[in-house]
Amino acid sequence: MLFYFGMTKANVTRSRILEEGTNLLSTSGLSGVTIGALAEQTGMSKSGLFAHFGSKEEVQLALLENTAQIAEKHVVTPTMRAQEGLPRLKALVRNWLGWTSRAGLAGGCPVAAGIFELDDSDGPVRKKLLEMESSWRAFLAQHVKRAIELGHLRRSLEIEQFVWELCGIYLSHHASVRFVKDKKADARARTAFDALLERALPVK
Amino acid sequence: MLFYFGMTKANVTRSRILEEGTNLLSTSGLSGVTIGALAEQTGMSKSGLFAHFGSKEEVQLALLENTAQIAEKHVVTPTMRAQEGLPRLKALVRNWLGWTSRAGLAGGCPVAAGIFELDDSDGPVRKKLLEMESSWRAFLAQHVKRAIELGHLRRSLEIEQFVWELCGIYLSHHASVRFVKDKKADARARTAFDALLERALPVK
Repeated sequence: MLFYFGMTKANVTRSRILEEGTNLLSTSGLSGVTIGALAEQTGMSKSGLFAHFGSKEEVQLALLENTAQIAEKHVVTPTMRAQEGLPRLKALVRNWLGWTSRAGLAGGCPVAAGIFELDDSDGPVRKKLLEMESSWRAFLAQHVKRAIELGHLRRSLEIEQFVWELCGIYLSHHASVRFVKDKKADARARTAFDALLERALPVK
Repeated sequence: MLFYFGMTKANVTRSRILEEGTNLLSTSGLSGVTIGALAEQTGMSKSGLFAHFGSKEEVQLALLENTAQIAEKHVVTPTMRAQEGLPRLKALVRNWLGWTSRAGLAGGCPVAAGIFELDDSDGPVRKKLLEMESSWRAFLAQHVKRAIELGHLRRSLEIEQFVWELCGIYLSHHASVRFVKDKKADARARTAFDALLERALPVK
């Protein structure tokens, strides 16, 4: 059956589950995404949810994939308007820090939270999360590399170390905005990132 | 009834619950600490556990307190042997990074994980965790301050910013050791901390 914009009714429902579910994931973490909690959040029956997702794990995987798509739209795509190299890297970091609020999610970054939630576990959800984290670090590295090629950052820069420290700034910002609720979190992250860049500039 | 070392049998059981429970907390996070999971871990009945702790929340609070005591013993106390100021600050950071493995816990740092787990929630467990995090940051700040007073770090250093960035290094190290399983995590953290110190040294 065709619905508006050519979406089937099943697809519309699935979209709604994903939207509500990603909010739930963002506030309650992966362990908070149960079929029961999702039923409550969406006002659907558990059996109705099972018609769309066969298991809790399947829902979690779909929600992580949806998170990646939201991040793509709100963090990555707008960055492409900035000039290649250092300006684009800076834009990327600006869009990345605190991105979930700007994307309209109810809570924090599901990937950051998942890293601390699933560190000591195993299975396909952890695997998916690790793939997302690894490809994100590779994406950051690619932008640092381009900034080096364009002479914006120094050739001797150790790219992996730069990305590692940048991830630390992101995590500390996440903790201070969302948990400590420190009003200076943005300024702290900016100062830290400026210092990281300062060490990465070409030697004059 | 008195038991060995003057501990009552109830206290011995309570100690064992705390020990097993802190391992559970360390691997599964606060949401993983349910009366059911703890019963399974300790081989006790749920009603047996309820004799010691009135609710899941009470267990979680007791486990966080136990975590603080373990950290005190393994991170803080050994640090006091180092010379005051910068040497002690360095020793503190060395003991802090990856402390849970050395303390014999089965998983990662319960405080770091809790910060990302409870950021969007409310209640006494979050409150307790925030107190622990705040007093830890104040403790770090106090050591930075002492290093400044002794002339080991520069007078113009912004202490809160230093601690903020140090927390970022801790979080990035936690993520890379436990989640990404990056063999270079220790070296990355050392390089990042050295760079942070470099910016904090007195101007020559």
